[in-house]
Amino acid sequence: MKRYETLASTLEAEIRSGTWSIGSRLPSVRHLRTQYGVGQSTVFRAYYLLEERGLISARERSGYFVAQGAFLSTLASSSSAPKEPEPAKIVSDLLFSVVEAARHPGIVPLGSGSPSPELFPLPRLAKSLARAARFLGPWSSVVDMPPGNEHLRRQIGLRYLGMGISQPIDEILVTNGAMEALNLCLMSVTKPGDIVAIESPCFYAALQAVERLGLRAIEIPVDPHTGLDLDVLANALERYPIRACWFMTNFHNPTGTTLTIEKKKTLVSLLTRHDVPLIEDDVFGELHFDTERPLPAKAFDTQGLVMHCTSLSKTLCPGYRIGWVTAGRYTDQVRKLKLMTSVATSIPVQAGIADYLQHGGFDKHLRKLRTSLRAQMASMEYAVAENLPPAVEYHKPAGGYFLWLKLPAQVNAMQLHLLALQRGVNVAPGSIFSSNDCYRNYVRVNCGHPWTSKIEGAVRTLGELLTRLADTGPSYAVFPSQKLSLKIDAEGCSSPVLER
Amino acid sequence: MKRYETLASTLEAEIRSGTWSIGSRLPSVRHLRTQYGVGQSTVFRAYYLLEERGLISARERSGYFVAQGAFLSTLASSSSAPKEPEPAKIVSDLLFSVVEAARHPGIVPLGSGSPSPELFPLPRLAKSLARAARFLGPWSSVVDMPPGNEHLRRQIGLRYLGMGISQPIDEILVTNGAMEALNLCLMSVTKPGDIVAIESPCFYAALQAVERLGLRAIEIPVDPHTGLDLDVLANALERYPIRACWFMTNFHNPTGTTLTIEKKKTLVSLLTRHDVPLIEDDVFGELHFDTERPLPAKAFDTQGLVMHCTSLSKTLCPGYRIGWVTAGRYTDQVRKLKLMTSVATSIPVQAGIADYLQHGGFDKHLRKLRTSLRAQMASMEYAVAENLPPAVEYHKPAGGYFLWLKLPAQVNAMQLHLLALQRGVNVAPGSIFSSNDCYRNYVRVNCGHPWTSKIEGAVRTLGELLTRLADTGPSYAVFPSQKLSLKIDAEGCSSPVLER
Repeated sequence: MKRYETLASTLEAEIRSGTWSIGSRLPSVRHLRTQYGVGQSTVFRAYYLLEERGLISARERSGYFVAQGAFLSTLASSSSAPKEPEPAKIVSDLLFSVVEAARHPGIVPLGSGSPSPELFPLPRLAKSLARAARFLGPWSSVVDMPPGNEHLRRQIGLRYLGMGISQPIDEILVTNGAMEALNLCLMSVTKPGDIVAIESPCFYAALQAVERLGLRAIEIPVDPHTGLDLDVLANALERYPIRACWFMTNFHNPTGTTLTIEKKKTLVSLLTRHDVPLIEDDVFGELHFDTERPLPAKAFDTQGLVMHCTSLSKTLCPGYRIGWVTAGRYTDQVRKLKLMTSVATSIPVQAGIADYLQHGGFDKHLRKLRTSLRAQMASMEYAVAENLPPAVEYHKPAGGYFLWLKLPAQVNAMQLHLLALQRGVNVAPGSIFSSNDCYRNYVRVNCGHPWTSKIEGAVRTLGELLTRLADTGPSYAVFPSQKLSLKIDAEGCSSPVLER
Repeated sequence: MKRYETLASTLEAEIRSGTWSIGSRLPSVRHLRTQYGVGQSTVFRAYYLLEERGLISARERSGYFVAQGAFLSTLASSSSAPKEPEPAKIVSDLLFSVVEAARHPGIVPLGSGSPSPELFPLPRLAKSLARAARFLGPWSSVVDMPPGNEHLRRQIGLRYLGMGISQPIDEILVTNGAMEALNLCLMSVTKPGDIVAIESPCFYAALQAVERLGLRAIEIPVDPHTGLDLDVLANALERYPIRACWFMTNFHNPTGTTLTIEKKKTLVSLLTRHDVPLIEDDVFGELHFDTERPLPAKAFDTQGLVMHCTSLSKTLCPGYRIGWVTAGRYTDQVRKLKLMTSVATSIPVQAGIADYLQHGGFDKHLRKLRTSLRAQMASMEYAVAENLPPAVEYHKPAGGYFLWLKLPAQVNAMQLHLLALQRGVNVAPGSIFSSNDCYRNYVRVNCGHPWTSKIEGAVRTLGELLTRLADTGPSYAVFPSQKLSLKIDAEGCSSPVLER
């Protein structure tokens, strides 16, 4: 074995043993030369070899980092026993600061997770709610307990039928939005210490749930072009006793990507082979720009393994808190957990939404909403092209309302987030979508708001800040209202410091 | 040490070591004679000594059983290290069968936990809901996120002021009923393996939460006359690292008892001394028969240790799912947990209830409701006196709508429950209110339904069944719809057998 191969093997073993976590920076060339008494070219050749093996990746002017997914994707070729994943850790306080900044009035909400509430037919909904409440029988508070109002479940069943999915209404459980559905499903099939597979990047609520329930997470890479990496997933399923997967199959948050029919079929058959349930988050599925709604993975589930969770919060009535899950073989346990934790979903609201779905013109509203979102996304793409540095990249999604922007490598998106907030603009920094401090040079931009000059100005502000950040490099930024300061070190690593 | 003293010490050590759990039957006199080679009178004297020490209690014709609370109340006099409580275990399936039987139409719902929904001002509520929904601004879905609609929180704040409690509205968090509030509080201050103090008997949701979250419970006895045993609690707080208490201070479910002002003050100062939070379930507080609403323990809390949880589900709008918690020093963490698990409480409903509380005449409705409940309870007491065997005992509550009936010792209430169900009557058997299989000869009877001949007939049925059970003793009973059969052994122990 040549010198650089030996060094590469040493470093590979260190990566596998967890000395450096995914996303962490490897020692500098100078450091390794001193430590191992080798020449500069040996170090470089070792790094190139590890790069070829997919274990590390270079970032311009920053050095080498342990690659996202490296740990898993290389396990197959490793003879050593796989190291089990650690319990997920996230900087919860920081995440809350970022998310709550989106609620501040006056801040341009490009970091928000929701579309503008002005896009929804509130007066028509109020009419349905008023009518349903007027005719609500007293015993509905008993009869409409979980699984929920039968009229509503029939309307939901009809929507599944519209996708060609025959869904028994007894398996539909009405919930307080998709968030409750997802959490109930995860709690129903796991216990503390269990391993679950989530996406990387992923909807941050999955990270919070994993942390809160004391689970351990394996993050499966999601490519903005092709979606979830099924090879890595297959490998992980072989290696680990994975108890559940939590994936977003359509217009994934934050990348916007959608799995092809073929990949969805493969996903379901892979999980069926391992008898692992899928918690499918499909809250954006109705927001397609093409003519057809993309099918959920649930459409290919013959074993009741897929728990399909969705809601009307992004499509019809934000704040009403109406979602549901079709939980297949887990129906009974999810229903019981709902009874134990929140008893029921508000009964007049269930009845009101049932009335709206039958009489309110939901499909017409959806067509209008999709047109608005597509137009808004086009405006955003135009503004990005006009105002942001040409190095900014993204993959154009076929639905939803998020753009996942890859910024120049030297830009720290958390720093951008903080500086932008000081100028009245909120964007969601990439690091809140992973527990491994990945995606430091990514931001998620919300295109769910009707286009205004204020939004255009906000994109211009982002462009100015980006140009400055790409030029001047790391520095300190201070988060004014939350008394949070963020130390940015020489390598662009952010360490949040909360002043208590 | 005399022979019987030695035997008593041996048995005491065995009880303390957990050989026999609370409520379990001790070996027969014949068995002990053989095992220890002693005479019958030695065994009896040992039993009498243990009975004096509060460790065991006799049940007529059934033998001796480990006393409820024995384990804790005797620890103070024990020099051995206290044994930590085990994780709570309950027969969840059985509990669900019992609870869900209450939902079956046509069954007389004396086992239900709710008052009749016919007692509530549904048309007036519908009017408030319709008006609020019509004027709901689109941004309410952002602004009214947790802690919740400000108008509603101001109305809630006014109700606290009415009790003489100055409650900052920033510490009021609107929830999906009290059930969500209680669960959020418990999750906020515990992690799996922690010890919490609950009541015995207690609201079964506390048992479910303890089991679900992997906690360990110490059950503090509640006497129907005097309420929670504060000496046992004080002892437990000294001995164990208790992380939280979950108590119902007013019109306790199931016993109906209310702590005196003095006991509430003592409770709060005791918890303050140990810096242990109290999750106070006060859902029945407004349903007082006297002129004054009994204060919650929260009224005496100067340290922000009491999380006062309540709702409008028993007093105004069952099924609307509006409750709240004032969480003191835990406000921020409870709010974040709410955001992570259910995002928000339905926003049009929050606005509708705010409108009702301001304009709907809540206090007038409450006065009427209290009068109805008091009259219904009087009718039930009369019917109980007329139809049930004279050996049946209870303590008359000063509010709420539950009677906690102590049946003759030889009656197994689970058997009564099953036989009554077959005849169209549901009562809640005592054993679902404890994890220790206590209260086998207790039932909780719901007086929350307007008095009818059907209810009168149901009480007569209970009387007939009770007379038969007291005469014939244990036997088999079959639960028809749930495919649950219950084996009753010679000692009156029930073993549920679920046919899958």
